[in-house]
Amino acid sequence: MLIQLVQIEVLPGQREAFVEAFRINCEGARTEPGNIRFDLLCDQDDPNLFYCYEIFADEAALDAHRASAHYRRCIELINPMMRSSRSKRMFQPVLVEGRAAERS
Amino acid sequence: MLIQLVQIEVLPGQREAFVEAFRINCEGARTEPGNIRFDLLCDQDDPNLFYCYEIFADEAALDAHRASAHYRRCIELINPMMRSSRSKRMFQPVLVEGRAAERS
Repeated sequence: MLIQLVQIEVLPGQREAFVEAFRINCEGARTEPGNIRFDLLCDQDDPNLFYCYEIFADEAALDAHRASAHYRRCIELINPMMRSSRSKRMFQPVLVEGRAAERS
Repeated sequence: MLIQLVQIEVLPGQREAFVEAFRINCEGARTEPGNIRFDLLCDQDDPNLFYCYEIFADEAALDAHRASAHYRRCIELINPMMRSSRSKRMFQPVLVEGRAAERS
């Protein structure tokens, strides 16, 4: 299992456009067999600072995500909206739950 | 919806005891009607640095969690194992999934 928290800083004025574009990625990822969780969050204080909590079954699942049409379309749309390059933090799973019920 | 990432630094040599104690909190929280997600993670590089990704329906649900027997029992067990005081970071939900299928 592979867990990451991706940090995404969006240019001022681009928040709504970003969320709509990232929705493509969220909805697509949640259909992927190798994805377990995909939550888009926002910083408590900065409305343009986003985080994505992502759980993948393994490295191959993350590779498949990055090769997907929905991921590539989303990246194409959001790249011009970035205030800085995206960064991420990786975690090891210890006591982690599975997929959301609404996916099945 | 209320989302937090709690940081927990454990004293060297206490990792296994901590995970066992925190399992009480994880399993208990996942039975709470107001809890939506409860994942215990570990830092990629530091085996004694833990994080808990927690989603609660609202403030009242988090209050109910803190009043629960499993939370209080866990805190009682882990307090002597702490390397520093716990801290947390709050997030706003943007595109967030629901409860894990195995809960229903």
